[in-house]
Amino acid sequence: MTRTVSVLGATGSIGASTLDLIRRQPGAWQVAALTANGNAADLARLAREFGAQVAVVADEAALPALRDALAGTGILAAGGAAALVEAAAHPADITVSAIVGCAGLAPTMAAIEQGRTVALANKEALVAAGDVMTAAVARCGTTLLPTDSEHNAIFQCLAGNSYDHVRSITLTASGGPFRDWTLAQLHAATPEQAVKHPNWSMGAKISVDSATMFNKGLELIEAHHLFPVGLDKLKIIVHPQSVIHSMVEYRDGSTLAQLGPSDMRVPIASCLAWPERMDTPLAPLDLAAIGELTFRAPDEERFPATRLCRAAAEAGGAAPAVLNAANEVAVAAFLDGKLPFTRIAVLVEQVLTRYAPPAPASLADVMAVDTAARAEARSLLELVTQ
Amino acid sequence: MTRTVSVLGATGSIGASTLDLIRRQPGAWQVAALTANGNAADLARLAREFGAQVAVVADEAALPALRDALAGTGILAAGGAAALVEAAAHPADITVSAIVGCAGLAPTMAAIEQGRTVALANKEALVAAGDVMTAAVARCGTTLLPTDSEHNAIFQCLAGNSYDHVRSITLTASGGPFRDWTLAQLHAATPEQAVKHPNWSMGAKISVDSATMFNKGLELIEAHHLFPVGLDKLKIIVHPQSVIHSMVEYRDGSTLAQLGPSDMRVPIASCLAWPERMDTPLAPLDLAAIGELTFRAPDEERFPATRLCRAAAEAGGAAPAVLNAANEVAVAAFLDGKLPFTRIAVLVEQVLTRYAPPAPASLADVMAVDTAARAEARSLLELVTQ
Repeated sequence: MTRTVSVLGATGSIGASTLDLIRRQPGAWQVAALTANGNAADLARLAREFGAQVAVVADEAALPALRDALAGTGILAAGGAAALVEAAAHPADITVSAIVGCAGLAPTMAAIEQGRTVALANKEALVAAGDVMTAAVARCGTTLLPTDSEHNAIFQCLAGNSYDHVRSITLTASGGPFRDWTLAQLHAATPEQAVKHPNWSMGAKISVDSATMFNKGLELIEAHHLFPVGLDKLKIIVHPQSVIHSMVEYRDGSTLAQLGPSDMRVPIASCLAWPERMDTPLAPLDLAAIGELTFRAPDEERFPATRLCRAAAEAGGAAPAVLNAANEVAVAAFLDGKLPFTRIAVLVEQVLTRYAPPAPASLADVMAVDTAARAEARSLLELVTQ
Repeated sequence: MTRTVSVLGATGSIGASTLDLIRRQPGAWQVAALTANGNAADLARLAREFGAQVAVVADEAALPALRDALAGTGILAAGGAAALVEAAAHPADITVSAIVGCAGLAPTMAAIEQGRTVALANKEALVAAGDVMTAAVARCGTTLLPTDSEHNAIFQCLAGNSYDHVRSITLTASGGPFRDWTLAQLHAATPEQAVKHPNWSMGAKISVDSATMFNKGLELIEAHHLFPVGLDKLKIIVHPQSVIHSMVEYRDGSTLAQLGPSDMRVPIASCLAWPERMDTPLAPLDLAAIGELTFRAPDEERFPATRLCRAAAEAGGAAPAVLNAANEVAVAAFLDGKLPFTRIAVLVEQVLTRYAPPAPASLADVMAVDTAARAEARSLLELVTQ
C-alpha cells in the first residue's frame, strides 16, 4: 500500500535521513511536498528523484532558481513563508517536520491541522508553541510521533503503558564535546570546537545546543508536552556513549530503555513505519564490542542550560518561547564569533528576566512572543558581550 | 476487585517474594492454594497468615506436621504428588509456578489446564516439556507470563510488537561467581564458592546453574519456547552488573531493554499486575550511582553449558528434557561433593550422547524421559568421577 509523505526541511540532516529510508522502499511511498530554506539546487534534485508533487523554498530569492531547475517536470515550485505553510497543509499521510528552529513553527502547525500523522523532529516548534500545539493536536485528532531520538525512545518505552504507572522518565545526554571542560575552558570555547559533536552528525545550531546542554533542556520541555507525567518525574542523566537514548521507569521498578546506533534513521524509521517496523541498513547493536556504558549526574554549575529550561517549563506560558528565541539569537551570535560560549546561557537568563509576556493563546501570539524575545535578545547582546 | 492467586513453591525464594507483594496489597488478593516441598512449619505459617484455602506438602512424610499446624483453621491440608497436582488445579485467577526443577512439571501442567493465567518461574518444567507445554497453553487458551527476570524483561520489551519485526533477542548473563576464573580454578571450585552469586540471592540449585552457565543455557531453551523467533535470533551476552535483564532488537535498529534491581519482586509484580502495573517497595534505579554497565561475549571454552543447551534446543524432541534431568543429577552430585565442578557439563554431554529417546508427546512421556535420563546420569556418575 502506497502512503504519501511530505518532508519539511528536506535538504537538512533529518530530511536526508528520511529520504534515504524512503529511497530504500521503492513503491511504498509517494512524496507529496518537499521544502527547503534556500538550497534550490538540492531541493530540485530531490523533488525530481522522488517525483514530488510540490517543492517549496522558504527564501523567495531562491524561487527563480528552483523554477528553472524544475522546468518541464510538472512539479509545482513555490517560495516564501505562505507557500511553506501551504506545502505543509498539502495532503500527506505523514508529514516529517524537520525545519530547524522556530522557523518550523507555522508549517508544523499547518501539518498538524491536517489531522493525520506528523513526525516531529523540530523541537523548537513544540518548545515555543507548547500548549497551543498540543491543543491543536488534540483538537484535530492528529497522531504526533516524536522523532528526536530521545523522545522516540521514550515513546517506544511507553508503548502499551499508562502514564499513571510511570515513576520517572530519564533523558540521556551525551554531555556534548565540552563534557569534561572546566569553566575557564568553556569560556574560551570556539564555534569550531562546539560543532564537533562526539556521537551525532548534526547541523551547527543543534551542535552548539548540545555543547551548552540547551539541547537537553529544550528536550526536557518537549518531553514535558509530549509525555504529561509532571515535570518532577522528568530527569536527565549524562551518558557519554549515547547508546541508551532514553528510559522510562515504572512504579514496579521496571525500567524500559531504548538503545541503538547514533543514527537518526532509527527513530525516523520508527515514525515512518509506526505502529509496525521497517528495515534500516544499520548494523546490529554490538554491546560486547562497545564494552561499557557509563553514566553520571549532570553538572548544572558548568552547564546551567538545563536548569534554565526546567525553570521555564515550570513557569510555563510564554517562558519557553522566550527562552527558545533568546537561545537561537545567542547561538547565532556565538557562531558569528560575537558571544563567548558561556554567555549564551547568561543572555538567555537575562532575556527571561526582562521579558515576561502573558501566555500565548494562538499561533499568532507565539510568533509575536518569538519576535519580541529575539528583539530583546539582540538589544541585550551588546550589554552581555561587553 | 479481589483476585485469587495460588503459589506453587510458597516457601522458596520466589514464593517469598510473591507473598511479600501480596502482603502489601491488603484486600486485593485471595490466596487459593499454597504448596511446599517438605517445610510444613513455614507452609502452615503462610497458609494461616494469608487465609489460604488449601496447603499441600509434596513430601507426604511432612503431612502429619502440616495437619497439626493447621488444626482448627479450616484450611485443607494435603500431601503427596497427586495432592500437589490437585492444588495446582484448584481454581485461581493466577498461579505462580515456582517449584524448582522438574518436580514442578506436573503441577505446572495442571495449572495451565485451568486456562487462566500462569506466572512461570519454573524454567526446568518448560525446558523439559517444551512443545508439550506450549501446546497445552495454546489448547487451553492460557496466558503464560514469564517470571524469570530475563524472560519477563523480553516479554516487556516485546509489548505491542510482532515477532516478525524482531532481529534478535539477547539474554544477559551475570557470568556467575566464576566469571573470571581459569579452567584450572574452575576444576577445584567448591559448592560453597558456587552458591555465592554476585547479584542475586537464590537457591542452591539455580546458583550452581548460574556458576556453570547452565542457567543461561536453560533460559535460552526457555526463550526458544516462549518467543518463537528462531534459535539463530537468540543470543547471550555477559553483563556482570545484571542491571539490564535482557533485550530485544528490532529490524529498524531499535533495541528495547528492561533494566532494574536484582530483586525478583520486579518481574513477579509485572506478572501479578499484567497488563497493568503495581507498586513495589524498591528504590528507583540510580544509574549515576551505578556508574557503568559492562558487556562481553560469553566464553564457551570455560563454560560449555550454553553450547550444550543450544545444541539440545536445535535437536529438539527429548534432548532438552534429557539435558535438564542430567544437569539436575550432576548439580546434586556436585553439591554433595561427589562431582568436580567442570564435570557437570561433561556428565550432561555424555548423557545426551548415550540416551536419545524419541520426542515426548505427552506429559507422561516427558516424565518417563526425565526418569530414564536421571537413571542414565546416575549410572554414568561413577565413570565420570573416576
